[in-house]
Amino acid sequence: MTATGERLTRLSAPALDEILGVTLPVLDDGFIRVVDYMGTDAAIVQAARVSYGAGTKLVSEDRGLIRYLMRHRHTTPFEMCELKLHVRVPMDCWRQWIRHRAASVNEYSTRYSIAIDGAQTTKTDEWRTQAADNKQGSGDFLDPTIGHTLSEQEQSFQSHARQLYDQRLEAGVAREQARKDLPLSTYTEAYWKVDLHNLLHFLALRMDAHAQSEIRAFATVIGDEIVRRWCPLAWEAFQDYRLQGQTLSAIETAVIAAIGGGDPGAAVAIATARGLLAYTEDGRIKRNRERAELEAKLQGFNLAIPWETT
Amino acid sequence: MTATGERLTRLSAPALDEILGVTLPVLDDGFIRVVDYMGTDAAIVQAARVSYGAGTKLVSEDRGLIRYLMRHRHTTPFEMCELKLHVRVPMDCWRQWIRHRAASVNEYSTRYSIAIDGAQTTKTDEWRTQAADNKQGSGDFLDPTIGHTLSEQEQSFQSHARQLYDQRLEAGVAREQARKDLPLSTYTEAYWKVDLHNLLHFLALRMDAHAQSEIRAFATVIGDEIVRRWCPLAWEAFQDYRLQGQTLSAIETAVIAAIGGGDPGAAVAIATARGLLAYTEDGRIKRNRERAELEAKLQGFNLAIPWETT
Amino acid sequence: MTATGERLTRLSAPALDEILGVTLPVLDDGFIRVVDYMGTDAAIVQAARVSYGAGTKLVSEDRGLIRYLMRHRHTTPFEMCELKLHVRVPMDCWRQWIRHRAASVNEYSTRYSIAIDGAQTTKTDEWRTQAADNKQGSGDFLDPTIGHTLSEQEQSFQSHARQLYDQRLEAGVAREQARKDLPLSTYTEAYWKVDLHNLLHFLALRMDAHAQSEIRAFATVIGDEIVRRWCPLAWEAFQDYRLQGQTLSAIETAVIAAIGGGDPGAAVAIATARGLLAYTEDGRIKRNRERAELEAKLQGFNLAIPWETT
Amino acid sequence: MTATGERLTRLSAPALDEILGVTLPVLDDGFIRVVDYMGTDAAIVQAARVSYGAGTKLVSEDRGLIRYLMRHRHTTPFEMCELKLHVRVPMDCWRQWIRHRAASVNEYSTRYSIAIDGAQTTKTDEWRTQAADNKQGSGDFLDPTIGHTLSEQEQSFQSHARQLYDQRLEAGVAREQARKDLPLSTYTEAYWKVDLHNLLHFLALRMDAHAQSEIRAFATVIGDEIVRRWCPLAWEAFQDYRLQGQTLSAIETAVIAAIGGGDPGAAVAIATARGLLAYTEDGRIKRNRERAELEAKLQGFNLAIPWETT
Repeated sequence: MTATGERLTRLSAPALDEILGVTLPVLDDGFIRVVDYMGTDAAIVQAARVSYGAGTKLVSEDRGLIRYLMRHRHTTPFEMCELKLHVRVPMDCWRQWIRHRAASVNEYSTRYSIAIDGAQTTKTDEWRTQAADNKQGSGDFLDPTIGHTLSEQEQSFQSHARQLYDQRLEAGVAREQARKDLPLSTYTEAYWKVDLHNLLHFLALRMDAHAQSEIRAFATVIGDEIVRRWCPLAWEAFQDYRLQGQTLSAIETAVIAAIGGGDPGAAVAIATARGLLAYTEDGRIKRNRERAELEAKLQGFNLAIPWETT
Repeated sequence: MTATGERLTRLSAPALDEILGVTLPVLDDGFIRVVDYMGTDAAIVQAARVSYGAGTKLVSEDRGLIRYLMRHRHTTPFEMCELKLHVRVPMDCWRQWIRHRAASVNEYSTRYSIAIDGAQTTKTDEWRTQAADNKQGSGDFLDPTIGHTLSEQEQSFQSHARQLYDQRLEAGVAREQARKDLPLSTYTEAYWKVDLHNLLHFLALRMDAHAQSEIRAFATVIGDEIVRRWCPLAWEAFQDYRLQGQTLSAIETAVIAAIGGGDPGAAVAIATARGLLAYTEDGRIKRNRERAELEAKLQGFNLAIPWETT
Repeated sequence: MTATGERLTRLSAPALDEILGVTLPVLDDGFIRVVDYMGTDAAIVQAARVSYGAGTKLVSEDRGLIRYLMRHRHTTPFEMCELKLHVRVPMDCWRQWIRHRAASVNEYSTRYSIAIDGAQTTKTDEWRTQAADNKQGSGDFLDPTIGHTLSEQEQSFQSHARQLYDQRLEAGVAREQARKDLPLSTYTEAYWKVDLHNLLHFLALRMDAHAQSEIRAFATVIGDEIVRRWCPLAWEAFQDYRLQGQTLSAIETAVIAAIGGGDPGAAVAIATARGLLAYTEDGRIKRNRERAELEAKLQGFNLAIPWETT
Repeated sequence: MTATGERLTRLSAPALDEILGVTLPVLDDGFIRVVDYMGTDAAIVQAARVSYGAGTKLVSEDRGLIRYLMRHRHTTPFEMCELKLHVRVPMDCWRQWIRHRAASVNEYSTRYSIAIDGAQTTKTDEWRTQAADNKQGSGDFLDPTIGHTLSEQEQSFQSHARQLYDQRLEAGVAREQARKDLPLSTYTEAYWKVDLHNLLHFLALRMDAHAQSEIRAFATVIGDEIVRRWCPLAWEAFQDYRLQGQTLSAIETAVIAAIGGGDPGAAVAIATARGLLAYTEDGRIKRNRERAELEAKLQGFNLAIPWETT
């Protein structure tokens, strides 16, 4: 790591340059545009090698190093890449987005300017039912005949809302007060700047199956269209280790080891001792969310569940 | 700073203990409650003295030390105090609040639960005009006869919005989707935890005359009712140095020094050279916001403005 | 979540109160003392339930909820607890400690005060060899006869260093400059304040077997002596899911599923296709760190490795 | 703020491009190199205008807007620019540097690699005395004859230290342990990435006259050589408003207003009432640091101090 007087040129990602500034549509009227970026896969490697110093170039090729960093959560080199997006998002979705604190934000101000005249609309076949098994999520789509009514009511309500807003402005009400009843479906815009480590954390949460479908639509475009072009090696490693990876607890590892060792009785004993497995007085198995999740993992491994599940 | 085996008891602020858990109302239906806290003025002093070490107790009394820290922006000791609030705030106001990233937040989830049935209402005499001199702020109140109409329309609209929300839930729409058209006036609740340094930064921005009156109402209660009881010395210093303090640029200092030295001509020369003072061809002074702010400061100092202002 | 006017008292952890202020020794002359704290396990639950709202108390008991939060990395409720420590640490160790940015720090200043007259010494049987299999770690202990020489040299050097420092001060050199050659073994002290989420992240990295033994000694005291008394449910969950947990990549999951399904040939095919398994022209298996880690996991599960490993 | 499909190219700062990668020497053997950057003055303006929205382009030219943002501490647009440096710094200096938490860091690891064989040396005429008026700073230079002895001792000590380190490595001691007695003067290297807002905060503190001269040397190169080329408008505004600006408290403003209004008696009354001005029983003025700082400001304004100062 000897410094020299050599001039550098900035690292660039030609595949990302191709879409720089281009509007990538999301939802009915939202979008994402890459405004600027700093660094590429090579910047991750470069920063990691500063830590490892001059004498240890044996960690040979870039892909292996990036995978190693991702696998062992050596996260600081991923902070060396930075991305700046211009996004157009419904306020309801933005309320979730802005919860990610490790980012820089400049949002369109409805104190300075008139609110964007656009609200996210829901098509007749896009209304979702409450999930049966999940307190926070959605299930199937509602029947389009019901959806038809809901979409008409939405249309009418959003018109009413905009009319009210316009009337207030015409009456001379300050913009900062006139906006108070805008519906959460109203679009807002922002510049959002974040480093790759924190972006991947955002994507891990927001591309997840439990994320709300609206923000998942944005996150998926960021991941599949932008990060894939920008830092393809980091993107591949992220998919393997984070997005499609899974975590096992000490208890789960012990249960699997017992099964793997051909001793399902030991597995039952461990699950019982650690509170995952218990029965009512009349012999029915007690509900336990931790065990249910373990059972799903065992099925994913094609391993037989060593206790009765009903 | 010798460590000892002596048992400590936690620092407490009896004046704050008196209102712990008590609802402090804000706006028509909002509130702030102190849920917990850590540290007091004494914790600020304690942390500062760790830095100064054993040999330098000369920085004698606590008030002087806290004022010194505030004056010279030695901010880290103020991070040693922590406050946890339970707040109920209109979503429009929360959109501004959540922009402060150095805090911990758990917000009421309208994915898990039905939205709070309450929207911030505006009384007939509370509608504000757009400020004439300020792109982002409010001016005087509108005539209550106009306000009467506006409040009636608001009432009707908010009922419509709630009705729509309820209908969607009855139709089986998922909570996370049904909420998409809730008006920004809908109340939300959150636990908000922040250290004193970052809280004072929040208050400096949100108690400011340019802050929107709604969030200013919350910030004022936090400052006047809570911080004053919790850390009275820090609160006094904050008011003197931050809230009621002001900043002078190098140019402004030079202009004041010229005036103070009895040389208004030199003041004019400085303002001209640095681009604050210029005239059109027909002799009228050009608008310049930086100069206008300097003139206001000179007036505040009872110093004569050394150039023609019209 | 209806707010009421009821007075609260602060949550307290009696088991932690017992050691508040008490010096817990670490290394030859370091220590950790709990100075203050905010919240307990109950505060984590309280914050999580704000998010879930009034209607969903079914997430029944606290232990289950805390385990659920830990398992699914719902991290924000853990930020609601705060801990303040007074620590005495060798500067070399502090250099690693201070890399954790999400904390508040006031360190003893050797600009204001004379440096602490204490350096971490190494006993004759504490000198460690360079690890053979790990670029960054230690292996076994060196022979105490060699260690005897090393410890004598250390003793002599540390005396020399302190003498030099004292001579500079006597010659009138400024403290901020006199300190420039203090050895990294010199002790420093600091107040360190951090929330439970970030503390657990610190512990996950610094209690790990790959952490340097000096900082591991501090981390272990924080975990085993302090967090265990403070938030026992969070501590138990943290041990199960983070400290003793493990992560599987998509590739690893697929390999295990193939083995579990009784098809080792499919496992070999997956490992080969994804670049983990390859052979040289003369038939020897190529080194691959990702595969080596997978093999170790398979052994931990008592599952047969489906390829030749030598 | 209409999004379009137009391709962008990244903003670049040609004046900074000229020194990209070039080693800028600091101290005897340290350096700073710009490795990469994102954004320019134009990015600040661009982000601010997102907030102001489409309808308000009246905030006419860039320089005025940037000065306005700086004056009123609208800091978020400055976060939109990012800088990545490669630095070589003595560990003693790095201990101060790393206290700035809002940055990304990868430091050379002396666990992985052998420590850099370089320590910061002090020339015979560079030894500084302890400041008389300042607990933490330096005063004049020591006599070079004394300095000669000090530099010789330093040279000898640093050789001793390196010899000890090498002997440990030869004896087979692990790198992570062998380094424990390296002197703080040993150089380290790091990649350091920070946004412009946080960089300016760093510079405000570290270019200040109270900062230690070693870190001030680094900060000055960053400011004068790098930021000046990168974002010249922000740099000019920063110098006027932050680096050479000053803050007045409410008390100070009231005292100046009394003097400006020709009523020095009122100024005395204010200073007395607010605790800045008091006399001992035998009529001598009591020391008060807050008043001493006010007196210095009055002198800077060429305003007569309205009380006896001795």
